[in-house]
Amino acid sequence: MGYLSVAEAQACILEYVRPVGRERVPLHESLGRVLAEDVISNRNHPPFDVSAMDGYAVRHDDLRDGPCELDVVDDIRAGHMPRAKVLPGKAARIMTGAPVPAGADTVVRVEDTEEPAEHRVRILKAPKPGANIRPQGENLMRGSAAVQVGATITPGVLALLAMVKCREATVFGRPEVAILATGDELEALDEPLDETKVPDANSHALYAQCKALGIEARLLGIARDNPIELKAKLAEGLNSDVLLASGGVSVGHHDFVRPVLESLGITMHFWRVAMRPGHPLAFGTGQERQCVFGLPGNPVSSMVCFEQFVAPALRRMMGHRRLFRQTVEARLAHPLRDRAGRMHFVRARIHRNASGGFVAESTGAQGSGVLRSMAEADGFIVVPEEVEALPEGATVTVQLLDEMAWAKEAGI
Amino acid sequence: MGYLSVAEAQACILEYVRPVGRERVPLHESLGRVLAEDVISNRNHPPFDVSAMDGYAVRHDDLRDGPCELDVVDDIRAGHMPRAKVLPGKAARIMTGAPVPAGADTVVRVEDTEEPAEHRVRILKAPKPGANIRPQGENLMRGSAAVQVGATITPGVLALLAMVKCREATVFGRPEVAILATGDELEALDEPLDETKVPDANSHALYAQCKALGIEARLLGIARDNPIELKAKLAEGLNSDVLLASGGVSVGHHDFVRPVLESLGITMHFWRVAMRPGHPLAFGTGQERQCVFGLPGNPVSSMVCFEQFVAPALRRMMGHRRLFRQTVEARLAHPLRDRAGRMHFVRARIHRNASGGFVAESTGAQGSGVLRSMAEADGFIVVPEEVEALPEGATVTVQLLDEMAWAKEAGI
Repeated sequence: MGYLSVAEAQACILEYVRPVGRERVPLHESLGRVLAEDVISNRNHPPFDVSAMDGYAVRHDDLRDGPCELDVVDDIRAGHMPRAKVLPGKAARIMTGAPVPAGADTVVRVEDTEEPAEHRVRILKAPKPGANIRPQGENLMRGSAAVQVGATITPGVLALLAMVKCREATVFGRPEVAILATGDELEALDEPLDETKVPDANSHALYAQCKALGIEARLLGIARDNPIELKAKLAEGLNSDVLLASGGVSVGHHDFVRPVLESLGITMHFWRVAMRPGHPLAFGTGQERQCVFGLPGNPVSSMVCFEQFVAPALRRMMGHRRLFRQTVEARLAHPLRDRAGRMHFVRARIHRNASGGFVAESTGAQGSGVLRSMAEADGFIVVPEEVEALPEGATVTVQLLDEMAWAKEAGI
Repeated sequence: MGYLSVAEAQACILEYVRPVGRERVPLHESLGRVLAEDVISNRNHPPFDVSAMDGYAVRHDDLRDGPCELDVVDDIRAGHMPRAKVLPGKAARIMTGAPVPAGADTVVRVEDTEEPAEHRVRILKAPKPGANIRPQGENLMRGSAAVQVGATITPGVLALLAMVKCREATVFGRPEVAILATGDELEALDEPLDETKVPDANSHALYAQCKALGIEARLLGIARDNPIELKAKLAEGLNSDVLLASGGVSVGHHDFVRPVLESLGITMHFWRVAMRPGHPLAFGTGQERQCVFGLPGNPVSSMVCFEQFVAPALRRMMGHRRLFRQTVEARLAHPLRDRAGRMHFVRARIHRNASGGFVAESTGAQGSGVLRSMAEADGFIVVPEEVEALPEGATVTVQLLDEMAWAKEAGI
């Protein structure tokens, strides 16, 4: 079997992946989840025509001849109903959100008025007829869908759900994810420091990447290069929807993971992707819809593979329609040399320059063991398979990581 | 006092705001927090020169004359130490991450070799001298800062912390935030539906916006337009670092919030910002470093103000250096008319078009009561104060909301 391109591998994975069911969650725990059913509005909002400003409700006919004075017959607060009709020559003081009284058809902003005496108002500037009134049902109509299935519950959506008194939301489930590191060389976080060992960073990187997606993953620890122990741990991991096993999937002699997974009933769909860092990467599925990612043993490679393959799969399982890291175009701050034949993800710092465009700059040594250049990255410069060299100033596509949601400068 | 620009108001707020202290948290709870001290590496990583590939450790001198055969004297796995020195004419099988044995200076990838017989290897293609070896301390040097104060704990940083066995991190604290809605017209989420009332969406929108920043805010409920109840609730809120009070700060007659806050010892720094939606917005500070935001009663206005003013303040309190929503340039999908004199934040859908640029399109009716157009927004088109009209295709600055971290297409 040859090498798959990144796009081919993504397509293969997403073909096997479906949302993992639905559940009811309290409104305040629904942030970031995806609605699994339409939410129908149980009210009109606004419930009647209301004022959009603090001001005076008037009959526009009274304003036709320029500045005028009117009698103030009512003072209508939000949450209270009008007590009087507005007849010709009359007005009602009205607050933002308060119901427009019968007879009135226009609201004049308080800034465009004066009070020459008690219960009198002078209109200095006439707005258009109907101005500053929000019609009944403008925001939401009773019986219509306030929010539709598939919507991610952002703060704005959550506010809309609160408005229709949706105290619990039906959302797509979250997959159970188990994380297993493999390798005799690994030292666990709670083991004493031994300089001849390699600290297990992968488990924690993967845990954090899952958590950033809203998933609390289960850490299975480290399986040593011993077929019996490995089989037991992999079997335990397969009780979850998704098993992330790092290390032990390369072409070398001591790699057990693939055959052991196959002996556990997993069908491996591919194990080679033409990318750097990241190779080798394996993907398999089981009969009970489990899926397994065999990730590289290097933390950087493992993290890059997670972003390209695991995150889209997990997001689809959670019902999201947006599966992939956002990309932008950027100018390269320096020349970049590369080997052709693999798509290269170059860890990069990204910022906006004075003219508003993005600039991408390598975070330094790109060896797959150099975790520091991953820790300092805002994103990845994506160098396509066929490219060998890029000059300074070249336009490149960059994938943005979470930190790029925020900027040092307001930029507006 | 006149109107402040958005930038002036932001500068005023940030002048009063400082990080709220520090605390120790378990590594797995540190994601998204900001390191409050340097973390020093307690190890070299790699601890010795290690192989970057699965292959054979050799003496490069043996490869000078083209393809050659060597005796295989050892088989070195990651996590195990070499048992034999590599003498001339000899090689050692070596796994990725395993220590390079004495005598060897180069690693040949397994793909570039054959095994003609047991304990023999044929080198088909010679790499450069020193190839495929990661030097001791390449990733981390003992005694140097692995991660510096001020770094946000991303998955990459968390992996680096795991590598130096940092099981607890010292991070900047998170502010306590209290949320209070004010107004006789409001109906709480747990009250029965009454169509003459306005559902309190603000409290929940603000709660969700805080939660998206990693803050679990305290909901104080609704204060009615009654000075005694209002004063009690505001006083309760001032026990927190930050009080967000929505509603009741406009210029109308029934607005109590400002004077009551002043009677509680709060100094108000401004209460008018030239923006739409969003006006009116008030900001004050107390003697015990509390700060108070008086936010508009309309959920959309309140949410926009939160993004422009409250989020940067909360992020600074948490030690972040990136305070503002990321912006990008986009092309306007349609003409836009506006009133000059206020910066306008137009709720918009944003996507990348075929040629790689962003396109921004209004989500529809932009009235400050229309929460649906907020719920559907990916970001805000920022129309500067002086602009009255923009043609279709104009280049505009857009602020990206969280959903824009992800895209429907891979885009690479």
